Amino acid sequence: MDVNEIQKFLLIIENKLQENWNKFSSNISIHLITAYHMGWVGEDLTPLANIRRGKRLRPLFCVLVNQTLGGFLDDALEIGSAIEFLHNFSLVHDDIQDRDEKRHGRWTVWKIWGEAQAINVGDLLFNMVFQVLTNLKSPVLLSKSLKELTETIRELIEGQYLDISFEKRKDISLKEYLMMIDKKTAKLFSTSFYLGAFSATYKEDLSKIFQEIGRDFGLFFQIADDAIGIWGDPEKTGKNAFVDLWRKKKTYPILYLYSESSEKEKLRIEEIWGREIVTEKDIEYLLDHLERKRVKEATFNLAEKYFDEGYKKLLSFQDLYNISLLRKLFEDYYNLIFSLQRS
Amino acid sequence: MDVNEIQKFLLIIENKLQENWNKFSSNISIHLITAYHMGWVGEDLTPLANIRRGKRLRPLFCVLVNQTLGGFLDDALEIGSAIEFLHNFSLVHDDIQDRDEKRHGRWTVWKIWGEAQAINVGDLLFNMVFQVLTNLKSPVLLSKSLKELTETIRELIEGQYLDISFEKRKDISLKEYLMMIDKKTAKLFSTSFYLGAFSATYKEDLSKIFQEIGRDFGLFFQIADDAIGIWGDPEKTGKNAFVDLWRKKKTYPILYLYSESSEKEKLRIEEIWGREIVTEKDIEYLLDHLERKRVKEATFNLAEKYFDEGYKKLLSFQDLYNISLLRKLFEDYYNLIFSLQRS
Repeated sequence: MDVNEIQKFLLIIENKLQENWNKFSSNISIHLITAYHMGWVGEDLTPLANIRRGKRLRPLFCVLVNQTLGGFLDDALEIGSAIEFLHNFSLVHDDIQDRDEKRHGRWTVWKIWGEAQAINVGDLLFNMVFQVLTNLKSPVLLSKSLKELTETIRELIEGQYLDISFEKRKDISLKEYLMMIDKKTAKLFSTSFYLGAFSATYKEDLSKIFQEIGRDFGLFFQIADDAIGIWGDPEKTGKNAFVDLWRKKKTYPILYLYSESSEKEKLRIEEIWGREIVTEKDIEYLLDHLERKRVKEATFNLAEKYFDEGYKKLLSFQDLYNISLLRKLFEDYYNLIFSLQRS
Repeated sequence: MDVNEIQKFLLIIENKLQENWNKFSSNISIHLITAYHMGWVGEDLTPLANIRRGKRLRPLFCVLVNQTLGGFLDDALEIGSAIEFLHNFSLVHDDIQDRDEKRHGRWTVWKIWGEAQAINVGDLLFNMVFQVLTNLKSPVLLSKSLKELTETIRELIEGQYLDISFEKRKDISLKEYLMMIDKKTAKLFSTSFYLGAFSATYKEDLSKIFQEIGRDFGLFFQIADDAIGIWGDPEKTGKNAFVDLWRKKKTYPILYLYSESSEKEKLRIEEIWGREIVTEKDIEYLLDHLERKRVKEATFNLAEKYFDEGYKKLLSFQDLYNISLLRKLFEDYYNLIFSLQRS
């Protein structure tokens, strides 16, 4: 019922991920590159003493929802590891597409092994999603997971497609942006919650409510991340100050700013979007303009709105189930995000 | 029992592919780019009067094997279209990896829409493989197909990984090369045959024999293709003369030549592999050297050996089943390959 309880589940999840990786790998060395990306081996492809894994947040939610509803842990672990492989396939391809050179402080796959092989590495992780599903013993759960995960992947790729297409556009409405992150980020969280609940109860209606909670959390997660991309403290995030401004990323705060701007101000923003390299002066202008329009408040308020919606729905279950771990994870994440702000 | 019979199946397959594409697409425009790749819409993303599709050879085999064994056509059509989407996902990613600008006489996806979006387009076709499987009504067939297809994809990606890794190596044995094409090309044919048979009979032993026939055909197909990449007639193939020599592709004939070369000759070949751009003189040297070592004969002989093995196994069924269409497709393909040679 405390942090150790969550750590225990994280350990079990990591073991299941490695177990599945072992089961579905062969002796061809590309599999070791997928293990590099998962954080288990180093650049030399030998095991790391201290693994450098991601947060495993999506399988964690899947498992915690399943356990909250009294489900069979192993089903949730299989589905959760399929979801984590899915998330990681998308990261490997995303890093190629965005030309990101680092992730969690390590070189990205394409940066070390080149683009062509990084496409293969992502494809292999993609395939592992479905290999893991073959572990499921219940035909109902298998067919439900297959249907939900393929719909989720379709939306995730659509979101990724829209995100990239936004780079060349300036007329992106906030509504369009929210539709994009709904697909690219929130959908996978909502599916983690949905399948966590379904694997425990096989009840459609109840699972749909958890699906909504997951979606709310996902939207909170992305919009808060957008805020931290501008107002995060480099000491705490490990990223450069104002990183999303330097990278001309069209995230919520900037699109909100643009939508609130006069024609003249819009031209100034478009000028920055059109530059090869952003200048110190551009950043100063944007920061000043963001402050004048109170965009930080608007962004955190929206993130908080989504958080509250999900949190409220979660708390409505507190007389029926022991939601303490899920509640703790929600609260910890909320606090974490706010603690990352520069003071 | 004649060409029209095969054409009829090709038409049904094309309809099933389009039906599945429709069922699993949304209004986000990336889906139209997958339709461009499939040959149904033009660069402007509007429907083509005359579709420009590939050979659909893999689903055709799947369907013909199923029908030969008296199976339920619709199951084979679903599995066959999953297999064709699988093949096409691999082509889209392959074109990015190889920097191929044309396929079937049309611009490749990455060439028109850029690499980042082409990765997404391939991923979307990849996902469609598994969306199509959700159409299968039999849980046994679904779980068998999922298992076989994911193993096939694993091998296909391993093969692609090995193929790319060969570009930087010179010590590739013929055995290694055959292992690579077994994974990259033959496995998908063997799975088309296997699932065609399994979907009709649910019999493991019988399906395994068809799996072998498919593998034999796949190895014939690839090695014959390697031969045509050097000795094909540009008028008939639509490709440049000696295209694989110009592109320094390490296919069977060249690796065979290398293995039969003296140390001095090996150095000359390595020199060519190391060049940024191959010269007329290099091509002349290689052609002459290939002739001296009788590599064309050796290559066609090996292709023929695989063909014969598969063909013989196929004919062993002729008293049990009406194999006339399958036999015709085998023979047509055999004749086609040899007709593509320059005289």
